[in-house]
Amino acid sequence: MNKHLFLSVALTSISGNMAQSYAQDKYVSDRSDKRPNIILFMVDDMGWQDTSLPFWTERTKYNEVYETPNMERLAQRGMMFTQAYACSISSATRCSLITGANNARHRVTNWTLEKDKTTDMKSETVQLPDWNYNGVSQVSGTANTFVGKSFVEILKQSGYHTIHCGKAHWGAIDTPGENPTHWGFEVNIAGHAGGGIATYLSERNYGHNADGTPFSLQAVPGLEQYWGSGTFATEALTLEAIKALDKAKEYNQPFFLYMAHYAIHIPIDKDMRFYPKYLAKGMTEKEAAYASLIEGMDKSLGDLMDWLDKNDETNNTIVIFMSDNGGLASEPHWRDGTIHTQNYPLNSGKGSLYEGGIREPMIVSWPNVVQPNTKCDKYLMIEDFYPTILEMAQVKNYKKAKNLDGKSFLPMLKGTGDTSKGRAIVWNFPNIWGNKGPGINLNCAIRKDEWKLVYYYETGKKELFNIYQDIGEKQDLSVSYPKVVKRLSKELGSYLRKVGGQRPSFKSTGRPCPWPDEDFTLQ
Amino acid sequence: MNKHLFLSVALTSISGNMAQSYAQDKYVSDRSDKRPNIILFMVDDMGWQDTSLPFWTERTKYNEVYETPNMERLAQRGMMFTQAYACSISSATRCSLITGANNARHRVTNWTLEKDKTTDMKSETVQLPDWNYNGVSQVSGTANTFVGKSFVEILKQSGYHTIHCGKAHWGAIDTPGENPTHWGFEVNIAGHAGGGIATYLSERNYGHNADGTPFSLQAVPGLEQYWGSGTFATEALTLEAIKALDKAKEYNQPFFLYMAHYAIHIPIDKDMRFYPKYLAKGMTEKEAAYASLIEGMDKSLGDLMDWLDKNDETNNTIVIFMSDNGGLASEPHWRDGTIHTQNYPLNSGKGSLYEGGIREPMIVSWPNVVQPNTKCDKYLMIEDFYPTILEMAQVKNYKKAKNLDGKSFLPMLKGTGDTSKGRAIVWNFPNIWGNKGPGINLNCAIRKDEWKLVYYYETGKKELFNIYQDIGEKQDLSVSYPKVVKRLSKELGSYLRKVGGQRPSFKSTGRPCPWPDEDFTLQ
Repeated sequence: MNKHLFLSVALTSISGNMAQSYAQDKYVSDRSDKRPNIILFMVDDMGWQDTSLPFWTERTKYNEVYETPNMERLAQRGMMFTQAYACSISSATRCSLITGANNARHRVTNWTLEKDKTTDMKSETVQLPDWNYNGVSQVSGTANTFVGKSFVEILKQSGYHTIHCGKAHWGAIDTPGENPTHWGFEVNIAGHAGGGIATYLSERNYGHNADGTPFSLQAVPGLEQYWGSGTFATEALTLEAIKALDKAKEYNQPFFLYMAHYAIHIPIDKDMRFYPKYLAKGMTEKEAAYASLIEGMDKSLGDLMDWLDKNDETNNTIVIFMSDNGGLASEPHWRDGTIHTQNYPLNSGKGSLYEGGIREPMIVSWPNVVQPNTKCDKYLMIEDFYPTILEMAQVKNYKKAKNLDGKSFLPMLKGTGDTSKGRAIVWNFPNIWGNKGPGINLNCAIRKDEWKLVYYYETGKKELFNIYQDIGEKQDLSVSYPKVVKRLSKELGSYLRKVGGQRPSFKSTGRPCPWPDEDFTLQ
Repeated sequence: MNKHLFLSVALTSISGNMAQSYAQDKYVSDRSDKRPNIILFMVDDMGWQDTSLPFWTERTKYNEVYETPNMERLAQRGMMFTQAYACSISSATRCSLITGANNARHRVTNWTLEKDKTTDMKSETVQLPDWNYNGVSQVSGTANTFVGKSFVEILKQSGYHTIHCGKAHWGAIDTPGENPTHWGFEVNIAGHAGGGIATYLSERNYGHNADGTPFSLQAVPGLEQYWGSGTFATEALTLEAIKALDKAKEYNQPFFLYMAHYAIHIPIDKDMRFYPKYLAKGMTEKEAAYASLIEGMDKSLGDLMDWLDKNDETNNTIVIFMSDNGGLASEPHWRDGTIHTQNYPLNSGKGSLYEGGIREPMIVSWPNVVQPNTKCDKYLMIEDFYPTILEMAQVKNYKKAKNLDGKSFLPMLKGTGDTSKGRAIVWNFPNIWGNKGPGINLNCAIRKDEWKLVYYYETGKKELFNIYQDIGEKQDLSVSYPKVVKRLSKELGSYLRKVGGQRPSFKSTGRPCPWPDEDFTLQ
């Protein structure tokens, strides 16, 4: 007992006053597992500029108009990442997150919903590949599915209490990947196969008729107690997450909370707690509604941070803020202003391999490990979260996992190294999404150092951008730098072939579209 | 593909016509994992005679009055076990089941409910041990908890889809063991910390007020959609289990369904689908209600068997029927007739170490492996389910699990061996349950071959029964067979000490009650 008491006191100086409970009562046990809690706060469809926190070198008009005080508060406590990448589409990102595999490898390149059905638009000229439209799973037995091991399963097996709250979107309806509890989550709040929310409004029961039946495949389950209560879905999820955290505290285990908001995905319903304020600023109805979705999400972040403060867990909790793809900029039905400009200074938005579709607002706070109020301008990719989080949880041997493409960015967090150095990041989108726009559909891309190459399967077109000098990707430098184009084309093609990436075929000939490093003119 | 097709066809002769789906559609995948589905159908508080299926050599009046046609149907398909043992109390049994550890080792010897609170009655003369009243868990960090590995977790990791339906009762409220999803179950229907059901009646929302708040710690969660619908809880659980099976079928995985009914535990509510029939037979209201609970449970078994038949899964599904302890025979409030006789020919009931408290109705059907319509008169113990089920699922290496006391009874199922030979089974109950009666409270026992020795901690009394000749435990042979008493006392005492069993202490002296092989007169 003395030994334990000593250990407990010794750790107190690092992780807060946790020894106190030892003295109270012999039945109240101190938390013997001192590893940090981890909250991964994942926002849906949030653009790089959908915040008052500037991720660029300059403040933009978006930073002026949106209000995200809690993101600012989190940034003061931790490190902002200005070049954090995800895929351009939700399923691709989330499947990389949970399996650690690059999107070209797991082949869930477009979004998933119904079993054995693709979600692609059709083309008269190209045949799309037979991609994994059933998503990912931890078990085999389902067609068109990538089988991978979940980092959450590993966390759970190591002793973490694991909580899912919000959007899952890992497997199509009726496939084993559809349910967060199949991925190692012990608690599932409102997560299912759907990739969106039918409505945020409790007045419409988040997608259910009065008799309880869903009126949409995107009806969100598990929030029945809030139906008709006037509670916006973002708030309902937050209240449920906090209940789960209260439980986690009782369990005396470190917890992993995946707080995966449906916000700020369409439908852009008005969160009336914030909407009038933005209208009063002179914003249009659509844009005020969008801003209200953002601030509702930000309030949720603040509520979780408040819970940590109140429960004396702030010092032993890592909070990671991330979005799953760029902001929606291609749908005039939902957004006002010129389309494809809503992520300025970035070009395009969700669905695009331009920066507007893949560069995300990211923040990590980790008291006593990550320097507060700092910024990291090195790049990283969504699959890197897998090994990073496992290392944060002091899990060893995860590297044995097959098909792990992610690389831990812990050295960047600790300031001990640059894991982006010499690193190539690859995106593959041999699909046709619903919307069109700059950098959207039938393409693949590679980022390495300052350069980004985008290749279009159907036309053979290649674009080369210097991201450091031209963040807006306005100047195609492919003609000026043929050697760079050739080098990156080779690296991109080699990578895609190595990991089993897919490509479309020409309907006219039945032959596959060339890889980026193959001669297109021979077609 | 040819190789797979061949394999599929080759297996078809054993496990049914599963190859058929191969030909239908390239998107419909056959189940590649051919291991058998497993249903463990666990009834609560069901006595050895609470059925029309005779487990004794003679038919009793109970076999005449109760109606369990589906147990009979299952027995025709499989093997009845006439000497299947469990502990005398729910938590003890269920904690042995899930961890594979004997009750003396896991120390959850009485029933659990609230965190850090014992449920024992007090004694003026003995101090009870500091047993594990917080239950069992897969993670450490909670006081008074046994940490063990769940066989369900192992099944899940091996590729089974795992479903919990009904009563859990593995950990006290707010401990990590409370939730089935913490034990490797991917689906949890209505399972929580509670060991009973507030009411089976949907009219009383299974324990919830009209505003949704629970009016009892035994309020059953997760059945909200049946509130007020007139659906008896047994039926609601069955309907939900079948929904989960429909899902499991979609997943193309073998499934493990733990169908753990709240029935036939008190409160003995009237299942009106069957109650009038038993009243018409001339039974009292209480006994007719009890019979209705039994038949409602039996219908559930039949519904699950029907599902297997309809879905062509019968030939590849193992069904195990079991109860968790003897029938309640000590509460005149709930039962009519002379108390302690309701498990005739067995003596006493729930809570007792006499056969009435621990001998269970058990049936196993496994087409093409277990001979239909057979009976096994060898004994086995509840912790044996752990290794047996894992072997059924072809899981290797489970024997590395620490603290595994159970032994696989697969040889008895296959008719290739007798795993009871030379086997000693031990019960420890250094507690005081709510009710009193023959063989209840402050005792321990050992069964070996034909003999059973019961030892009482407070008095030093020893009873020896020849179970083969005296199933009713009416003749204490301890005086006639002193050598057997000495031998079994030694084996019992050694075992209890070896596994860390607990014992009460005398309040007068503060000294522990002697072990069965210590000299009581020296106290």
